[in-house]
Amino acid sequence: MKLRSPHLLGIEFLEPEEITAILDAAETFAEISTREIKKVPTLRGKTVVNFFVEPSTRTRSSFELAEKRLSADSLNFSTSTSSLVKGETLLDTARNLEAMAPDFIVIRHSEPGAPHFLARHCRSSVINAGDGAHEHPTQALLDAFTMRRRGRRFPGLRVAIVGDILHSRVARSNVLLLTRMGADVTVCGPPTLLPRGIERLGCRATHRMEEAIEGADVVMMLRVQLERMRAGFFPTLREYARLFGLDGARLRLAAPDALVMHPGPINRGVEIMGDVADGAASVILEQVTNGVAVRMAVLYLLAGGAERETAA
Amino acid sequence: MKLRSPHLLGIEFLEPEEITAILDAAETFAEISTREIKKVPTLRGKTVVNFFVEPSTRTRSSFELAEKRLSADSLNFSTSTSSLVKGETLLDTARNLEAMAPDFIVIRHSEPGAPHFLARHCRSSVINAGDGAHEHPTQALLDAFTMRRRGRRFPGLRVAIVGDILHSRVARSNVLLLTRMGADVTVCGPPTLLPRGIERLGCRATHRMEEAIEGADVVMMLRVQLERMRAGFFPTLREYARLFGLDGARLRLAAPDALVMHPGPINRGVEIMGDVADGAASVILEQVTNGVAVRMAVLYLLAGGAERETAA
Amino acid sequence: MKLRSPHLLGIEFLEPEEITAILDAAETFAEISTREIKKVPTLRGKTVVNFFVEPSTRTRSSFELAEKRLSADSLNFSTSTSSLVKGETLLDTARNLEAMAPDFIVIRHSEPGAPHFLARHCRSSVINAGDGAHEHPTQALLDAFTMRRRGRRFPGLRVAIVGDILHSRVARSNVLLLTRMGADVTVCGPPTLLPRGIERLGCRATHRMEEAIEGADVVMMLRVQLERMRAGFFPTLREYARLFGLDGARLRLAAPDALVMHPGPINRGVEIMGDVADGAASVILEQVTNGVAVRMAVLYLLAGGAERETAA
Repeated sequence: MKLRSPHLLGIEFLEPEEITAILDAAETFAEISTREIKKVPTLRGKTVVNFFVEPSTRTRSSFELAEKRLSADSLNFSTSTSSLVKGETLLDTARNLEAMAPDFIVIRHSEPGAPHFLARHCRSSVINAGDGAHEHPTQALLDAFTMRRRGRRFPGLRVAIVGDILHSRVARSNVLLLTRMGADVTVCGPPTLLPRGIERLGCRATHRMEEAIEGADVVMMLRVQLERMRAGFFPTLREYARLFGLDGARLRLAAPDALVMHPGPINRGVEIMGDVADGAASVILEQVTNGVAVRMAVLYLLAGGAERETAA
Repeated sequence: MKLRSPHLLGIEFLEPEEITAILDAAETFAEISTREIKKVPTLRGKTVVNFFVEPSTRTRSSFELAEKRLSADSLNFSTSTSSLVKGETLLDTARNLEAMAPDFIVIRHSEPGAPHFLARHCRSSVINAGDGAHEHPTQALLDAFTMRRRGRRFPGLRVAIVGDILHSRVARSNVLLLTRMGADVTVCGPPTLLPRGIERLGCRATHRMEEAIEGADVVMMLRVQLERMRAGFFPTLREYARLFGLDGARLRLAAPDALVMHPGPINRGVEIMGDVADGAASVILEQVTNGVAVRMAVLYLLAGGAERETAA
Repeated sequence: MKLRSPHLLGIEFLEPEEITAILDAAETFAEISTREIKKVPTLRGKTVVNFFVEPSTRTRSSFELAEKRLSADSLNFSTSTSSLVKGETLLDTARNLEAMAPDFIVIRHSEPGAPHFLARHCRSSVINAGDGAHEHPTQALLDAFTMRRRGRRFPGLRVAIVGDILHSRVARSNVLLLTRMGADVTVCGPPTLLPRGIERLGCRATHRMEEAIEGADVVMMLRVQLERMRAGFFPTLREYARLFGLDGARLRLAAPDALVMHPGPINRGVEIMGDVADGAASVILEQVTNGVAVRMAVLYLLAGGAERETAA
């Protein structure tokens, strides 16, 4: 299977069969990271530019490992040293990157739509590694992969996403992916952090955490950003934890075999209590492991998948 | 052909035949970056230290890609994290780098002559990636390569270089290279930014932009550094643009098939208008593409060229 | 020979035969860095995360080169960009690194014991690249390797270590290694920088430099940290240099063929005079060269040594 687009800009543009194809390919790549020799020659001689205008060690490292395990050459081009600081436009930087003939540009940017803009102006495959509060498609794909590896099937799967829905690209990409695959999604957060009209994406919304997680098969907690508190979106961390933190008592409202997920890094004692994060239901570290496999799958399929391999 | 020196410190030390040899080799390497597998084993097992004491994402990335496409191992050793901040001398840092047995040291430094100093004290091949206002030889070589690929021949070629000639290593290396190859070079800039006696390098000098570009086959614009304005070298960006900015009207004074060049990053609306930078005459992005090929050629030839290959 | 532990946390845990095994392996690896092709496939497909929470270009570069010359894939995960700044605990960061299935984690951290903590919670091999004022085992190993390559035998070897003993992990690891191998070690420094009871480690201690270096076969000088002066541990650099700096006159008190060592970077004119650092007795740059070989040996042996190779 080949993806229709040479870019991965958002879940928004993926058909269910494409999502399934990525998850299927990720199964194969997950196995490679368990081998003695964690490397395949799939993308040898390909260049990937990791263009991170917003800092992110975690996502950048996951992509970089995926690239290295596929034998691609990685070039890190990150913000602090980039000439964007000298006032160059994103378009000029993109054209300059492009002129060095990379096969892929992985972009993290604080502006929603920056990856789409790049894709319109570049021959390289563009992968969105997070654009503002818009999308973070590889995160949603690795979350879905984690659910599937744990034996969950999407049709009718009850997923609660709890936290700062308003500013979360993780929430947005997950709602898009999960509803598209037939899951039953409820988003939950304080009134100030729950966008009006979010139901139009096909999910339900509530301000009451108990309502959101009652009977849920998956409870996905979002990271609280301290700067939101400072900006007045909620009064104190203690208050936030009391109303929207996941502790053992609340988790017992979910389905007996519910999975607990979090995109990381976690704030212990704020949105999630330590014993829940480290408990039997938690698959938080599996999400990290699966991130490498899913990113390998995305790179592989965007490069043309099996088609390319037989041609080479 | 083998270069006479194991180092590339400046255009100053290159004979015309050496320049031609580098441009010839670059033709071969330019082709590699267009392949499906952009990689040759030429420098496998060689170590290149990219020692950037002055930040530069652009040049560093170009070198790093050139190194990776030749299968060398790259080590980035940049200023912010370097022990130079702890007060170590350049000589001590150089000796320490040297002790780790790199084959090449690519150095960018704010002090003119720093690469020469390194070369005197190191067994590694030293490549000057820009030293203060002194030289930037790979930039001049990629500029020359771009002209040649566009079918221009150097004898009698009329080149205008416009901008801050005083502080520009790009201008200096270009004047040296182009005059050595027989081109007819005119430099142009405000009186405060045009060094007295520049004509001794074999070029003409003028403060009037129209005079410089009239009939020019190549118009090379230099980047305006905002800190120069703050330091009083010129009054305002608007005034600078009015007197020395390249717009369509001025470009029409040049030869009908004139090439527009710029080492990047460009300041749209200051030294170059957007429509000219993006116009049919502009080869600015080709310069970036050619930079990788020229740097591959330099690394290859300094490593011993074909001689080394047959020996290996 | 295989090391007993999968980790290298400190000299403290190494038997003399293990130290000898590492130094023996380093002999082999030292040769690789002198070859035309400085690369062996020993760790191909292995992932090494260089997790530097305290900045260190020197040690990080030495490890990175060792990894590349063994064909491992290196991932740099350093502090300024790490999510530790967002308040994540070391344990959470470690678990996240671990989840990406690295084979090795090389850690530099300001907290003593941080590598041990990681080792308890990770399946990866953990290598201590310096933890606070505690240990820096690869430094002591490369120092010992340098002495041995220079023909020195440890039993009865007279070694003087001079400087800020109190805050020095280099001193601590060296005292442990050298006394374990049968050397006769004297530590020396101002009263404020010489920990009470240091003799329990099996060395002698003195505040008089002349006493320490008289007849010494090796004089190892430690770097003065300027922040110690500011914190009042000694009055001025000039005073420090007068009492504890190594000049030619003092060096003449040592054995006629004494070696002068320093972990770098040196403060010329403070703890060591320039002519001594650059003199015939100095092996400071050999230490740097040997660092790469010793780190290759450590990675090789932790990966299982010859056993692994025959199994693969």
